Amino acid sequence: MRIAIVNPNTTQSMTQAAAASAGSAARSDTVLIEVTASTGVASVESHVDEAWGALSVVTEIERCEASAERPDAYVVACFGDTGVSAAREAAAGPVVGMTEAALMTASLVAHRFAVITMPKRTLRQSEQVVRNLGLEHRCTVLAVDETVAELAEGSLHLLDLFTAEGRLALDAYDAEAIVLGCAGLADLVGPLQAALGVPVIEGVAAAVTIAEGLVAQSLTTSRALTWARSSSPSEAVSA
Amino acid sequence: MRIAIVNPNTTQSMTQAAAASAGSAARSDTVLIEVTASTGVASVESHVDEAWGALSVVTEIERCEASAERPDAYVVACFGDTGVSAAREAAAGPVVGMTEAALMTASLVAHRFAVITMPKRTLRQSEQVVRNLGLEHRCTVLAVDETVAELAEGSLHLLDLFTAEGRLALDAYDAEAIVLGCAGLADLVGPLQAALGVPVIEGVAAAVTIAEGLVAQSLTTSRALTWARSSSPSEAVSA
Amino acid sequence: MRIAIVNPNTTQSMTQAAAASAGSAARSDTVLIEVTASTGVASVESHVDEAWGALSVVTEIERCEASAERPDAYVVACFGDTGVSAAREAAAGPVVGMTEAALMTASLVAHRFAVITMPKRTLRQSEQVVRNLGLEHRCTVLAVDETVAELAEGSLHLLDLFTAEGRLALDAYDAEAIVLGCAGLADLVGPLQAALGVPVIEGVAAAVTIAEGLVAQSLTTSRALTWARSSSPSEAVSA
Amino acid sequence: MRIAIVNPNTTQSMTQAAAASAGSAARSDTVLIEVTASTGVASVESHVDEAWGALSVVTEIERCEASAERPDAYVVACFGDTGVSAAREAAAGPVVGMTEAALMTASLVAHRFAVITMPKRTLRQSEQVVRNLGLEHRCTVLAVDETVAELAEGSLHLLDLFTAEGRLALDAYDAEAIVLGCAGLADLVGPLQAALGVPVIEGVAAAVTIAEGLVAQSLTTSRALTWARSSSPSEAVSA
Amino acid sequence: MRIAIVNPNTTQSMTQAAAASAGSAARSDTVLIEVTASTGVASVESHVDEAWGALSVVTEIERCEASAERPDAYVVACFGDTGVSAAREAAAGPVVGMTEAALMTASLVAHRFAVITMPKRTLRQSEQVVRNLGLEHRCTVLAVDETVAELAEGSLHLLDLFTAEGRLALDAYDAEAIVLGCAGLADLVGPLQAALGVPVIEGVAAAVTIAEGLVAQSLTTSRALTWARSSSPSEAVSA
Amino acid sequence: MRIAIVNPNTTQSMTQAAAASAGSAARSDTVLIEVTASTGVASVESHVDEAWGALSVVTEIERCEASAERPDAYVVACFGDTGVSAAREAAAGPVVGMTEAALMTASLVAHRFAVITMPKRTLRQSEQVVRNLGLEHRCTVLAVDETVAELAEGSLHLLDLFTAEGRLALDAYDAEAIVLGCAGLADLVGPLQAALGVPVIEGVAAAVTIAEGLVAQSLTTSRALTWARSSSPSEAVSA
Repeated sequence: MRIAIVNPNTTQSMTQAAAASAGSAARSDTVLIEVTASTGVASVESHVDEAWGALSVVTEIERCEASAERPDAYVVACFGDTGVSAAREAAAGPVVGMTEAALMTASLVAHRFAVITMPKRTLRQSEQVVRNLGLEHRCTVLAVDETVAELAEGSLHLLDLFTAEGRLALDAYDAEAIVLGCAGLADLVGPLQAALGVPVIEGVAAAVTIAEGLVAQSLTTSRALTWARSSSPSEAVSA
Repeated sequence: MRIAIVNPNTTQSMTQAAAASAGSAARSDTVLIEVTASTGVASVESHVDEAWGALSVVTEIERCEASAERPDAYVVACFGDTGVSAAREAAAGPVVGMTEAALMTASLVAHRFAVITMPKRTLRQSEQVVRNLGLEHRCTVLAVDETVAELAEGSLHLLDLFTAEGRLALDAYDAEAIVLGCAGLADLVGPLQAALGVPVIEGVAAAVTIAEGLVAQSLTTSRALTWARSSSPSEAVSA
Repeated sequence: MRIAIVNPNTTQSMTQAAAASAGSAARSDTVLIEVTASTGVASVESHVDEAWGALSVVTEIERCEASAERPDAYVVACFGDTGVSAAREAAAGPVVGMTEAALMTASLVAHRFAVITMPKRTLRQSEQVVRNLGLEHRCTVLAVDETVAELAEGSLHLLDLFTAEGRLALDAYDAEAIVLGCAGLADLVGPLQAALGVPVIEGVAAAVTIAEGLVAQSLTTSRALTWARSSSPSEAVSA
Repeated sequence: MRIAIVNPNTTQSMTQAAAASAGSAARSDTVLIEVTASTGVASVESHVDEAWGALSVVTEIERCEASAERPDAYVVACFGDTGVSAAREAAAGPVVGMTEAALMTASLVAHRFAVITMPKRTLRQSEQVVRNLGLEHRCTVLAVDETVAELAEGSLHLLDLFTAEGRLALDAYDAEAIVLGCAGLADLVGPLQAALGVPVIEGVAAAVTIAEGLVAQSLTTSRALTWARSSSPSEAVSA
Repeated sequence: MRIAIVNPNTTQSMTQAAAASAGSAARSDTVLIEVTASTGVASVESHVDEAWGALSVVTEIERCEASAERPDAYVVACFGDTGVSAAREAAAGPVVGMTEAALMTASLVAHRFAVITMPKRTLRQSEQVVRNLGLEHRCTVLAVDETVAELAEGSLHLLDLFTAEGRLALDAYDAEAIVLGCAGLADLVGPLQAALGVPVIEGVAAAVTIAEGLVAQSLTTSRALTWARSSSPSEAVSA
Repeated sequence: MRIAIVNPNTTQSMTQAAAASAGSAARSDTVLIEVTASTGVASVESHVDEAWGALSVVTEIERCEASAERPDAYVVACFGDTGVSAAREAAAGPVVGMTEAALMTASLVAHRFAVITMPKRTLRQSEQVVRNLGLEHRCTVLAVDETVAELAEGSLHLLDLFTAEGRLALDAYDAEAIVLGCAGLADLVGPLQAALGVPVIEGVAAAVTIAEGLVAQSLTTSRALTWARSSSPSEAVSA
């Protein structure tokens, strides 16, 4: 099975980190394909960045679809699930966003849970995904106010900040698990779980197992209405 | 007061139709600036199209902001409010989406109302705006299954289809007003109102009056968190 | 255009303050008509007061409707939108409540926002309007525990209390704008905006611009069902 | 125990019908006091009527409270629960609205149920009570489009209309019980139950048993905040 | 009238305490029948315990139904309403859970209220009942972290803990009444009401008055769909 | 990896059918363990049956946990997710209900979808799971009114009934995928998908892939609060 890990930003080290997290949970015979946005923004930290990111997701998926070795499924590796709906129209196989995957996974191991995202200005974008899934009554979104650029070389230096916010989630919001709210935080899973004593969920790892499951069930996006194949990209032209 | 009417697609005749509708409701001293996407898709009818459209909105607004005569406010003339959040980060002045404006306006003149959008595959995109505004208990979304391309020369030929769907909205959903769910339908307002006997709301006209009101109150987008000014567009680069 | 500013209580100085706020945002050619309840309560601070206030709104609007110079639209200048539904049945032109207008306006410039109302016992009445509009997920209601009678000579002496509560709204609830939750607080707009650094919205000013917009669009209340013209007032008789 | 049945309109025959229904369910030693609005409207069928009705409720309760034999509790006998919040502020003892009582009672004997109200224009007023109680997911509101004035001499002539609407509720909405949505329909309980084969709930009967229960538990309205005793009625004066 | 107070656990002293609370509010001619689970768990403090408790409720009700003196109605005396839906299928007469009864009663005397349950791990179980009734917007659930076994000899030694939590409910959540969130807390009603100055509601007392009311209205569970009589218990066999 | 497929009823052929469906999607190296309730009901078709079923789930899981070869994870193979919360307390490894798994899976391949359950009286039980997951706005529950006993020898004879209901789901509710609402319907997946042209989801197959994913991520139920290990089963005794 071939699963593409699509990073909507142009920072290759983030794609590698996401793919590494996916690899830690994927089946041994799953082939992970790293896909990095070829144009766009270096990190997605605003709604403007999301506009760039969503188009990058579509463009890269169209490229993959046209390639000789079309992936069986896609994981969109950006918290906020930028471009996931559009990706579903563009891809033949199923598409799983890391945020929806993380939230569903959390709901299976914890009654209440918290997302800790970053930077703080993206709080409402994460909440939007929570609300679309209808999980407002079970999920709180908190934030560490650091830029995603901070994560270029890993996230372990943020452990204290995440532990403090996680402690708040447990004490003040009765969270029983933590969802890491950014694609570059996989190396925090172990240390944070140790520090807090509750499950810590990384969305790319969660998403790759769910994508594997969809392929195993021979399921892909319904074309009945909302996510019918979109008109061809050649319609996007200069005026 | 200068208000830009931003059309996220590349079809200039749609921009003109939107601006004409805005002009029918705008104050006599308001200057309307027609802004058409210079690249992107010819009409927005899918999530992939929305990815193109959102970036067009951002790009065109950044261009306007950099111009000598910066608009005092913006109206995004695409049902579904494509790119409106990003636009708020990019613009100094306030931004009003035609969908949110139409729904708010409808809620002031009717307890229950219906959106009639097109084509049918965009039903859920309109519902998403309804849900973001919390108006699910007052608004039903129906659709006429024609493409937006149909509207190049006006929409009067669709009157029978809209009347039939509007009648359904009144009879089966207790709608008491109709919101036209596409930017190119302004010429239906009068005939449909005559046919159905209830208020018919056109979002661009609604949005321009609300934008005027925000400027009159000296209000613009809060920069406190969610819609803080975004990082500069120069960060969007080729990898 | 003639817009009546209807104060449901008998305190004329409050009508004047509301009309002044309306005047600060209204078009230069809009004529504002001050309407004060001729009987009823001196201020609306409880549900019993609201019963008096709602009937005052109806009675005064019926008087205006019967007058030679019928207003084109009405603004109900009482936080909680007392009597607005009844007003819609009684008036030929559109009716806008200051609360609904303020909440809609806030939602266009801030993702999350807070109402600061007074006195504290009216908290739930404001929340009811928020809930009717479906904005619970974006709006928090806080209160300063002073009586409305406090506002007879202006509200500047309450600036510190409102600033403290506003600071709480920003810090604890991520509010990005503040809605003033009482009709007599217009003179706080500037100072509070300066103190908090976020938009501060005054509902009467917001409402008058929205009412102007409805008239500009030739829209009025739908008579299809909920707000059909009510039976004539002469049916209200002594037993 | 003394329980006042408060009819917000001026039609005494309706008070008598409501009291008769209350009497059919009340304890044998409960004394029912019939209270008819001394001024106001002959029936409550619009929002304007509700403004009159709410004030009638307050006025009559204040009169009862000042009387030598103060009731231990009040039932407000008008579908829509007109004036109930204000009544809680005005009365020393507990106040139960017939609508909230009927909905709670229905929820104990049926998972889903339907209100059949009249006339049709009051549909949204009943739904408002449903929404305030949070029962939207279990209750549908339907209507028979007859005026309340129709009920002056009983409601048996409406049996066919109610049976037809009830059948629709069972078949199309999976309702498992019916709530009669008007105060004058008590004589329909038996025949409609026989026709439909599901429980039929009359709100005044339901409310009087709940009011008895509150008195038996020595419970009355909390004065902590929302329904604290209101300012004295003498504050309501001519300007 | 004969009303069975069904305790889903095997601790007879708890049944007695529940019946005593019921007796304090019941009509003088109501006969209360104490029913204790003959097998199962000593107290219900987890979801596993609830599985035992629900079956105990069904089994004991089937026994009562087969007895010579079938009760007219049942009260399930366990916070969380364990087994109430199954009980409705098993019993000929109406069934009232102490949690739903308490929440409905609270909603009639207070706009916002709080449940104080115990132990803390059952927080979400109480919230589930709140959510099923749709009262999330009016009710907060807090907990004292003591085991139910603590209540074998009464609950007065927990007064300070409940007072502290109740104070928090009033101050931080604007609660205006308190619901005791466990069947064995009836002796706290008076002291806690005195300490906090707001109504304190005990669910078994509330439920018995509501059950009396249902019988007085000749209402029982609808058999139309969800709670149709279940297949006979003899179908439950060893494989 | 060892995953137990737990059937809460005593009908072994249903366990076999569920395990076969799981096997069709499971990894080749996953060992599926068939677990059939040793006591209880032959099929779960009412709330009383659910009381039996939930206890069966707990009892069988406790037996598995005490066995030499403890499963790594559990799938509860009963639509309605009977006993899943209790199972989480009883099991060391993660527990996935077939209903929650099916709904999550559907939400990834279809914006709107429908459950088709059976018999009709269980409609509300399925809806309860939908509501707990917050998916009311995306999922409709329909039913075929046949008993589960019908499924002893497979479900192909019900294809026409399911196709008719599925067609209704697509046409009247805009469903874009179908969830089979009973554990014994796996042989309908292919034919129904062929008949309707949209994805058809079988919950046991969905659940086993999700359970595999949880194990691959080394995730299990949080013990922080709601699903902390329950008190030992030995506490469940005869009185």
